Amino acid sequence: MKHISIIGVGLIGGSFALDLKSHFPGVYISGIDQNDAHLKEALKLGIIDQTGDLASVSSAELVLIALPVNTAINVLIQVLDLIPNQAIVIDMGSTKQAICEAVAAHPKRANFLATHPIAGTEFSGPSAALKGLFKNKTNIICELNQTSTVLAGKAIALFETMGMHIRYMKAIDHDKHIAYVSHLSHISSFMLGKTVIDKEKNESNIFDMAGSGFESTVRLAKSSPAMWTPIFEQNKENVIETLNEYIQNLNQFKAYIENDDFDAVYSEMKNTNHIKKILKGIA
Amino acid sequence: MKHISIIGVGLIGGSFALDLKSHFPGVYISGIDQNDAHLKEALKLGIIDQTGDLASVSSAELVLIALPVNTAINVLIQVLDLIPNQAIVIDMGSTKQAICEAVAAHPKRANFLATHPIAGTEFSGPSAALKGLFKNKTNIICELNQTSTVLAGKAIALFETMGMHIRYMKAIDHDKHIAYVSHLSHISSFMLGKTVIDKEKNESNIFDMAGSGFESTVRLAKSSPAMWTPIFEQNKENVIETLNEYIQNLNQFKAYIENDDFDAVYSEMKNTNHIKKILKGIA
Repeated sequence: MKHISIIGVGLIGGSFALDLKSHFPGVYISGIDQNDAHLKEALKLGIIDQTGDLASVSSAELVLIALPVNTAINVLIQVLDLIPNQAIVIDMGSTKQAICEAVAAHPKRANFLATHPIAGTEFSGPSAALKGLFKNKTNIICELNQTSTVLAGKAIALFETMGMHIRYMKAIDHDKHIAYVSHLSHISSFMLGKTVIDKEKNESNIFDMAGSGFESTVRLAKSSPAMWTPIFEQNKENVIETLNEYIQNLNQFKAYIENDDFDAVYSEMKNTNHIKKILKGIA
Repeated sequence: MKHISIIGVGLIGGSFALDLKSHFPGVYISGIDQNDAHLKEALKLGIIDQTGDLASVSSAELVLIALPVNTAINVLIQVLDLIPNQAIVIDMGSTKQAICEAVAAHPKRANFLATHPIAGTEFSGPSAALKGLFKNKTNIICELNQTSTVLAGKAIALFETMGMHIRYMKAIDHDKHIAYVSHLSHISSFMLGKTVIDKEKNESNIFDMAGSGFESTVRLAKSSPAMWTPIFEQNKENVIETLNEYIQNLNQFKAYIENDDFDAVYSEMKNTNHIKKILKGIA
């Protein structure tokens, strides 16, 4: 691969660029981003080799789209219209159903691979990019059978070079599972942060007591609203379902406490300790 | 100090013993614990020098109580009955009002110091003990004016030697603040774990997707039910209040999504990002 376009030079796009440069020293990376400051920063940090506009994808072999999920759909359609026949376009957004539906009938559908690498931090922008971010992380590929076998094979080889483990899912299944495991975690964390901030007028209390579990549980509440709002919008039905179940479980737990049923409180926690076994192997 | 008794040789008691030994090589530590396996383990790990029974506190200069908060109250009363006049008894439980009330009229009340070091991990038992656990952590001391000035001074000097930052609070205030910052974090995390486990029959999905924020948000759901059940019982009123506010915030957030009010969804998250500033300085 020689000319690669990365659209969205933030945490994901920037980290992908760093890994590309590390594994394939010959690549030449154009960065495309609506945010000029991010582009300049990415150039300065050596993440990209030049800045470009959307039209420049017409000479790219690989185009990576790493944008908020609402923007990604429109950009993907434009990119598919512009790219050469042998190029592959990969998106890495956190929802997969809407984007797969939007290009289902596009003449260049076979040039597109829908992926979701389960990697990231609560930070964003080019300065958050990390070499090796994708190592030992899961990358979920959706609707593989809609992508050209040759192009998908190239992309998968690339992901494996970066150390990713590949899983395959239908887009509809991906969005359902990820709502539980990831989207709900973010909302529970944001609302935990809100509840504590609203109540604690004395911020030094929060700071002083944060070591007691709060700091790690609220970590995701530092995440970017610009990234997360369109995720919740696109995955609205699944997110509402997970929230209903979460709120129901919280109400049940509260009722046990209210009714002094501390055997049930104990059992609920004991059963949930099973998460230790499930997560074994994750640091 | 020469003879120190540590009642409860788990994460907190064990870590305190390790720090004592590191800063005061001459100390001799008796470990007291209902769990014989923990006692043997603590002895083998060099956390304690001998095992003892409750009666052995009659020759101790300092007694540390690091037990589940329900057990701690009864043990504290027995210990105060047994100790010499110049000994100090420190408890380190996560609730402070019930224990302070229980000994308010005890003839040796002045020998007791109520503390809560904001330190710990989701693990428990002697093998979870860590040297330096308390370094740079906050230790909240409650009802200081009820403790002998000389004995409190000794204890505070000890905490400072271990690198703790001291804060003073009324027991009633401690329990209110800690319900928000710590107890609510634990419940939100336990119920997140429960919701995901209940829904995801395929545990490999949880494992594969856990890197997307779930793993850190659910960390506290690995915590010990034996430790946490009595905390929620003793701090029942405050915990219910925090749960009501948390559930209300979650319902509000869900309503914004249901009503397609994504400007409000964005604002809620943007405002909560303020937690970044509050936690600045915490790794």
